[in-house]
Amino acid sequence: MSSDFIPTDRSQVRRRPQRAAYDEASVFAILDAGLMAHVGYVIDGQPFVTPTSYWREGRTLYWHGSAGGRALAAQAGLPVCVTVSHLDGLIVARSGIAHSAQYRSVMAFGRARLVQDRQAKRAAMAAFIDRLYPGRWAGLRPTQDAELDAISVVAMEIEEAAAKVKAEGVARLPIDETWDGWRGVIPVRQVLGAAEPVEEAEAPPLLALYRAGARLDETLAAAAQA
Amino acid sequence: MSSDFIPTDRSQVRRRPQRAAYDEASVFAILDAGLMAHVGYVIDGQPFVTPTSYWREGRTLYWHGSAGGRALAAQAGLPVCVTVSHLDGLIVARSGIAHSAQYRSVMAFGRARLVQDRQAKRAAMAAFIDRLYPGRWAGLRPTQDAELDAISVVAMEIEEAAAKVKAEGVARLPIDETWDGWRGVIPVRQVLGAAEPVEEAEAPPLLALYRAGARLDETLAAAAQA
Repeated sequence: MSSDFIPTDRSQVRRRPQRAAYDEASVFAILDAGLMAHVGYVIDGQPFVTPTSYWREGRTLYWHGSAGGRALAAQAGLPVCVTVSHLDGLIVARSGIAHSAQYRSVMAFGRARLVQDRQAKRAAMAAFIDRLYPGRWAGLRPTQDAELDAISVVAMEIEEAAAKVKAEGVARLPIDETWDGWRGVIPVRQVLGAAEPVEEAEAPPLLALYRAGARLDETLAAAAQA
Repeated sequence: MSSDFIPTDRSQVRRRPQRAAYDEASVFAILDAGLMAHVGYVIDGQPFVTPTSYWREGRTLYWHGSAGGRALAAQAGLPVCVTVSHLDGLIVARSGIAHSAQYRSVMAFGRARLVQDRQAKRAAMAAFIDRLYPGRWAGLRPTQDAELDAISVVAMEIEEAAAKVKAEGVARLPIDETWDGWRGVIPVRQVLGAAEPVEEAEAPPLLALYRAGARLDETLAAAAQA
């Protein structure tokens, strides 16, 4: 199997194709650095975009929620678009048009399906917890059948995905070179704060990745590797 | 005019309605603390979710992009869903089901329209720049007509919007009280790094809000007030 996603009209990036990539490594790196996705789906012609936590196993994305909610039931069996984005910087320029942002994003397309049986749902939850906090699932209070019945788990095999990355700094428009004024990049990053325990206790070693001051994207990527 | 959005079936939050709010103050606070939205739209039944920067004026949201791209043209005249979310923390619990996240989000619904004439597009760009960097537009190299013609600006009057906030910490499930193990919240925040100027120069006073270490959400909210 090729390690590239094959873009069709749906996922082909037209504007600035030099910023696009369709290979698994590029797509997975952006997905594995994130926790929150924005899932797009359609009910009666109306688009909805729901923010949700997600995880990845191979070419499959997962997310979950209440079995009683509308969103997951509405997605089942239908085409969805899952978008993950990271804001990396603000580009401050000498002209309005050259102001911009640095970012990494993935748009992934596929068809949502509900994970039906308890065993598969339990395995999915375990994979999610261990993807975030490697080794944690085994030490948790066992999940009850009723708890599994109360949630829906959605899986989406990625049929197509496009990564788009803008990492370059301020555009050097010739006309802007003749103008004065400060220009530059203001970096943005998601960072972790100091853990706030419910009971006074040292955080367990398996949470060592989540140290105060660490970048969330790097922490998530490292946890996904562990 | 009431300062509440009136939810219909489209925006009413069903799961955990105690986390939902429909008043302008709650909705605008979340919108004004953000820079990136995820815009959902439909082409031939296929949902798309595009990450994009946005800004707000009253009850109108704006975003822009290349006039040559597909996304904005496909949105014009059609229903869209604009979602803004902030991840505030990771909730680490003693059971799988109690793991969660702290967040603030808004789903805003309306119909996209293209801002057509140059004067309105220029005013929109000025509003965007000054919303981010108060007072900056007046000092920028003037925007040319050709530059305005190369971008599309989309406006969406918010017809309905729902804010959803999860700020509470670890759920205290009775069954989890009988289990051992560390639990707590790991805060997450987006912060600014030290500005990286193209030319060695002191950043101008109007960028003072964007100091290294500041929270992005607080900075954006303060800039929107300025």
